[in-house]
Amino acid sequence: MSQIDTAISPIIENFQSKLMLDSNLISFQNGLPNPVCPSTTTHESLIDKIKKKIENKETWFSLEFFPPKTVNGASNLISKLEFLGTGKPLFCDITWHPAGDPASDKPTSSMKISNVMLNYCLLETMLHITCYGQTKESMKQYLDKAKSIGIRNLLALRGDPAVGTEWRYQENGFNYATDLVRFIRENYGILPIQSYDSLRHICKLSKLEVPQNIVSAMEKIKDNDEAIRIYGIEQAVNLCQELMQAGVFGVHFYTLNRDVAVTEILRRLDLWNKDSEPRHLPWKSKQLCSYSRPDEDVRPIFWSIRPKSYVCRTSDWDQFPNGRWGNSSAPSFGDLKDYHIFYSKINTKECLAQWGHNLNDETDVWNVFASFVSGKPNKIGVKITSFPWCEEGLASETSLLTDELERFNRQGILTINSQPNVNGAPSSDPVIGWGSPDGYVYQKAYIEFFISKSFLPFLLEALEKYPRVIYHIINKSGDINLTNCTLLNPNAVTWGVFPGKEIVQPTVVDPISFMSWKDESFNIWTDYWGKLYEPNSTSRELLEQISNTYLLVNIVDNEFQKENCIWSILNEMLELKAKNMLKISLKLA
Amino acid sequence: MSQIDTAISPIIENFQSKLMLDSNLISFQNGLPNPVCPSTTTHESLIDKIKKKIENKETWFSLEFFPPKTVNGASNLISKLEFLGTGKPLFCDITWHPAGDPASDKPTSSMKISNVMLNYCLLETMLHITCYGQTKESMKQYLDKAKSIGIRNLLALRGDPAVGTEWRYQENGFNYATDLVRFIRENYGILPIQSYDSLRHICKLSKLEVPQNIVSAMEKIKDNDEAIRIYGIEQAVNLCQELMQAGVFGVHFYTLNRDVAVTEILRRLDLWNKDSEPRHLPWKSKQLCSYSRPDEDVRPIFWSIRPKSYVCRTSDWDQFPNGRWGNSSAPSFGDLKDYHIFYSKINTKECLAQWGHNLNDETDVWNVFASFVSGKPNKIGVKITSFPWCEEGLASETSLLTDELERFNRQGILTINSQPNVNGAPSSDPVIGWGSPDGYVYQKAYIEFFISKSFLPFLLEALEKYPRVIYHIINKSGDINLTNCTLLNPNAVTWGVFPGKEIVQPTVVDPISFMSWKDESFNIWTDYWGKLYEPNSTSRELLEQISNTYLLVNIVDNEFQKENCIWSILNEMLELKAKNMLKISLKLA
Repeated sequence: MSQIDTAISPIIENFQSKLMLDSNLISFQNGLPNPVCPSTTTHESLIDKIKKKIENKETWFSLEFFPPKTVNGASNLISKLEFLGTGKPLFCDITWHPAGDPASDKPTSSMKISNVMLNYCLLETMLHITCYGQTKESMKQYLDKAKSIGIRNLLALRGDPAVGTEWRYQENGFNYATDLVRFIRENYGILPIQSYDSLRHICKLSKLEVPQNIVSAMEKIKDNDEAIRIYGIEQAVNLCQELMQAGVFGVHFYTLNRDVAVTEILRRLDLWNKDSEPRHLPWKSKQLCSYSRPDEDVRPIFWSIRPKSYVCRTSDWDQFPNGRWGNSSAPSFGDLKDYHIFYSKINTKECLAQWGHNLNDETDVWNVFASFVSGKPNKIGVKITSFPWCEEGLASETSLLTDELERFNRQGILTINSQPNVNGAPSSDPVIGWGSPDGYVYQKAYIEFFISKSFLPFLLEALEKYPRVIYHIINKSGDINLTNCTLLNPNAVTWGVFPGKEIVQPTVVDPISFMSWKDESFNIWTDYWGKLYEPNSTSRELLEQISNTYLLVNIVDNEFQKENCIWSILNEMLELKAKNMLKISLKLA
Repeated sequence: MSQIDTAISPIIENFQSKLMLDSNLISFQNGLPNPVCPSTTTHESLIDKIKKKIENKETWFSLEFFPPKTVNGASNLISKLEFLGTGKPLFCDITWHPAGDPASDKPTSSMKISNVMLNYCLLETMLHITCYGQTKESMKQYLDKAKSIGIRNLLALRGDPAVGTEWRYQENGFNYATDLVRFIRENYGILPIQSYDSLRHICKLSKLEVPQNIVSAMEKIKDNDEAIRIYGIEQAVNLCQELMQAGVFGVHFYTLNRDVAVTEILRRLDLWNKDSEPRHLPWKSKQLCSYSRPDEDVRPIFWSIRPKSYVCRTSDWDQFPNGRWGNSSAPSFGDLKDYHIFYSKINTKECLAQWGHNLNDETDVWNVFASFVSGKPNKIGVKITSFPWCEEGLASETSLLTDELERFNRQGILTINSQPNVNGAPSSDPVIGWGSPDGYVYQKAYIEFFISKSFLPFLLEALEKYPRVIYHIINKSGDINLTNCTLLNPNAVTWGVFPGKEIVQPTVVDPISFMSWKDESFNIWTDYWGKLYEPNSTSRELLEQISNTYLLVNIVDNEFQKENCIWSILNEMLELKAKNMLKISLKLA
């Protein structure tokens, strides 16, 4: 990368002036609503979003990326996508590199990156696709795959001939972008809603002439990287401001897969994350733009702490549960085949500093959990920001439970998921609210934790006094498997009531899915945490032993209108155990 | 019918002693639960119900009927079934008359009566079926039909040869009841759970010898019908008491399609309707035993006042909405083809006395509505117990709204359906509760009424101040069709939260179904009420005019946590109209 690239990156493109000139942007759309049974979800197409922004005179930005060259590069790009996503781009697009096996399942392919962008990072995603030199069969395969992934926006391009060859008209082949658009229209039950001019291919950039005043200015500071960086950002901000003052609402950035400069420019333009966006559902931060899981609105609560794992393990499902989990004829949970993309870059050093260089006994492990839930530094003064059971950090509502959770974790009740009960709070509540702002949300108190098998008799004795709760207790092998739930029904633990809508119940405790979750969560002890340590080390053996002997417990308090009884159960269990220890020690004495 | 028939009718059969001897009772069962997605509904087979009764040492009774000979007889029998159903028989069975076209769609066929018994009267139903002299093809057709109706209990019988012929072994035919049982097992993915001896065919009764002491006793009173009736009941009660003291829990009555004697016997035995049964869902009095609509748990609220019409109009549906109305791909509403069975016996004289012999102007009609909702006698002192829009009388919760409803009806707001808002009442509440007793139920306030078009501007003006409500206003032809609802989403108006279960939302206001309901409810003015009067009479023309010019309005108040605003809207509308009338009269003056 030359310094000039750095200086004028990100490159800015004015969108608005090019709207509705050509027909290269294709939106996959749902069919017309069934007149008898309309879908409760309405998808707003990207073009409609853009039009609405312009009508409301709101500014926006969008970000363009290219597929990475290495698996490590893919991991880095995904981190950047997740970070840049918090700035709320209107959409992100990924370019198509015909030479880079762009439709493959490799972590570096355009198709795979667009999948991650859309379904895991939850960004409105546009996939470039080029047709030059392709057969109709291969194009059909590419488009089928894009559709099955859930891509709803394609930027149809002609594409360039391979380096060193000339563009030539091909009989029955794809010669122009319009050939591809025609092919898409002929082959997909799809609806091109609107269109606008193609974005200039980034390669053409090199043919642009850099204005003389920029060349002169940069000549003076060419040995000062920091000055060049500042100058580049300054230029970009000025250009954007001029455009926006001239009535441009949308700005498209060619990020060159970098995040620092674009973030600073966006912040200075006041385009970065201006509005805090309400949660669409409790387990995803905003409405999915994916065509492949459009009506999904109920998930087992277990994966609310690992949403990427859930998306990964359900990516082969043909349809997603909607309204009611128990209605679903969805297949069983798949494996974590795509999941490595997110974790190939796990930073061992960082993780060891947070989770402990040496774990000598169980209380060392308990204190890691306690530090994580409390946000307090661990014994070497390091704050625990990532945790193997928790992809996205602690949910904001966990702050309502911090003190109790820390206390219980320090005593060996290793909580991995919990929520307070909520009895009809406004859906606009900043901590526990979700959905449109004029509804009411409800929750049953829920807790999930690992615990030593030595607690079992005391836990069961404490639970007996509370028939209002439903519990499941299981160990890794499944030979301990206890529940007071007589039917294998899902239990709704989060639901919402909104004007003019059916009841939404986005999370359930499902006894059958819990079996799949059990395997996943016990494996985390050894596969994500244990592997940080040498084989046969005390730390690794301790984690293996915990994985093999601890119990996984979940408890739902069905009485959401009353005070949560879960703390009482845990306190009584601890007291019963303490009394028993006292008895034993008295006997010994 | 001879006096002896009267005296010893109903004939009593001891069930328990015959349990598990033979294999003639077949239960259609659901398949095994899908291990990934278990059904949330569990069906208890009749045999399990009987076994549970015996285990719990609870007594029960069951009632046997035969198919009627005439359409009028069918209507009478259905009324008796509805009445006897309130006494809570464990099941009812209907005999099979091979000579009477038993599998046809005639109102007098065994198949049709079993359908009504099961799906409209909501009784656990057993259908007799005989095989002697039948081909496998015809038996297959009969069994398919029984299954599609939702019959889960069959009493498989050999059947008798036609009168005047002898029983003969038929190669490849059905010779014994066990042949039929084997055929059913071979041809249906069905599960015979348990079995017991066949009930003695009622015809065999005539071959029984009547004990001498009974003959002697009856000889003395043979000219006194009332004495014979009393003697018969006395004998039956004594026999049942002896059986029950000897440890018999269940008694089966051959009712001979009569209801008076059996009711008195059951009352004296304390078997009649001992427990008040909680509502399973708000729109049906108990859990349906039908195999054909097992998972159905959401319906448009419109038909909550006409459940038989709803069952009739949806009887061709292959599947029923479950959990969410908007998910349903159910076909559109059919016609009321079976419905005449319930109304072939409409008593014109009775209806005229209740709804008015002469309707001179609109206020006459308004007062009929007001008398019905208030329970007060009409102007000739007759109490209105049936009403054309309301199959089952007023819902108990309407009593919560009586005063307001009466006042509004007297002023021309002709309410046909309404419910108060409920914010998390215990599901065991005797008036508004439903479902298992340990949950909470919720409702949005709802009202549906007819109103003169002259109210329209004032109604719209009043509604404008309440964005929290969603309304629909429509006339018969549909050329007035106003709503503030932007999407065609169903709006949940009744829902419940229960431990260990998904959220249930049994009633919704569905804007699309409302179009079908609109036609049905406007037609009631002319087809059920108007037809009572001579063509061209003032009354008939008035009702036709109302049907053609009035509006049908429904309003949902989405703010179920706050005080219902529907009364305020209606009051404001009335005030606005009164002010306007005043203005006009002042101008005229």
